[in-house]
Amino acid sequence: MVENDSDSILQDSKNEDIVFLVVGDPFGATTHTDLVLRARKKGIQYRVVHNASILNAVGCCGLQLYNFGETVSVVFWTDTWKPHSFYDKITANKSRGMHTLCLLDIKVKEQSIENLMRGKKVYEPPRFLTASLAAEQLLEIIQQKREKGEKDIVLAEDSLCVGLARVGADTQTLLACTLEQMTSVDLGPPLHSLVIPGYMHPLEMEMLKQFALNDSVIDMIETLERNSEHSQS
Amino acid sequence: MVENDSDSILQDSKNEDIVFLVVGDPFGATTHTDLVLRARKKGIQYRVVHNASILNAVGCCGLQLYNFGETVSVVFWTDTWKPHSFYDKITANKSRGMHTLCLLDIKVKEQSIENLMRGKKVYEPPRFLTASLAAEQLLEIIQQKREKGEKDIVLAEDSLCVGLARVGADTQTLLACTLEQMTSVDLGPPLHSLVIPGYMHPLEMEMLKQFALNDSVIDMIETLERNSEHSQS
Repeated sequence: MVENDSDSILQDSKNEDIVFLVVGDPFGATTHTDLVLRARKKGIQYRVVHNASILNAVGCCGLQLYNFGETVSVVFWTDTWKPHSFYDKITANKSRGMHTLCLLDIKVKEQSIENLMRGKKVYEPPRFLTASLAAEQLLEIIQQKREKGEKDIVLAEDSLCVGLARVGADTQTLLACTLEQMTSVDLGPPLHSLVIPGYMHPLEMEMLKQFALNDSVIDMIETLERNSEHSQS
Repeated sequence: MVENDSDSILQDSKNEDIVFLVVGDPFGATTHTDLVLRARKKGIQYRVVHNASILNAVGCCGLQLYNFGETVSVVFWTDTWKPHSFYDKITANKSRGMHTLCLLDIKVKEQSIENLMRGKKVYEPPRFLTASLAAEQLLEIIQQKREKGEKDIVLAEDSLCVGLARVGADTQTLLACTLEQMTSVDLGPPLHSLVIPGYMHPLEMEMLKQFALNDSVIDMIETLERNSEHSQS
């Protein structure tokens, strides 16, 4: 609504106080920045109340916020549109030792091509990209790169990742496992996020072990821990 | 207190509910992750309430959160200790077009070397690194690099930066100006942060103009806008 109807929000604010509630921090979305800008230009006083956002709440998985690189968005692939840009950003972060938070696509109020062409305002049911499907898309990119003979592929089937579901809610679920394992995991209802860790400090690994899928993932993290101790000594 | 005394917090939680309040998001500090880890190991139930943090509230300056690279910490320099690491991270972000949030040093409960040696538990008054002093330290590094004849210096005296003070409070102050200008600006009481923008989209520039120090800064941003339009067309 705010995308198409911000003028009516601002119009009403001439006579009364208007509150506009959002999920996450108000400045997480360009649309809200635009609303603030319009208000300023009209001389309408505003006050922003900041809020927790997945951008900092992701810290609940134990990976330290200051070790995250650029945040990426993973979109739903279609049969004809399979962008790879998020993969490149993840590997750029990982190569520099940084973690990556992957925000997963949300499709609400989408029309089928048929309904769009017929001008029917019938909307598809909302869809939310799961950590599982995001991992699947990542693995498909890796597979393609391998088939093309590309070297220095930073991610693989056995790369560690963390799935986060409903962060901050009572049903919050965190799971650390390999990308391969993530493809067959069901973290339950939305919203999901996916984190690809970079270099991890001992405390980060210790925390991640708490959310390990199984003992073999704990073994994997402990092997990383030992290797990191050796490289430091 | 939590650094040295987390055991007593956990001890009391056996018999009663304990609430531990922090500034920002609980997982912004390694210490709090450690506390959660200790609680888990002792089988103590816990619940984390996430909160706004400067890591997302920084969006109030108009720069989009997903365009920020790695966050850096700028420390108070001493006569003998002047680390440059934050400069390198800022320029690495900027070279990739990303913005950098600089968190500025906080010194509380610090002892003078004299009191430390005498074992006197007398603490110095708290100190908070200002955006102004941070800009000064950055310019000193740039000057040194220039004297050494280094090329490709990404930042200069006339680079744009944004000072943020008391974000989220009623007295919040935002100011966009050059690094040189920032050195002589007083943003008032703590806490301050400093942002070094990377590549900016039109909406980001539009918002930044709202906080420009003076007309010459607005001109500067508008020149950037025109150059970015030309490079796109």
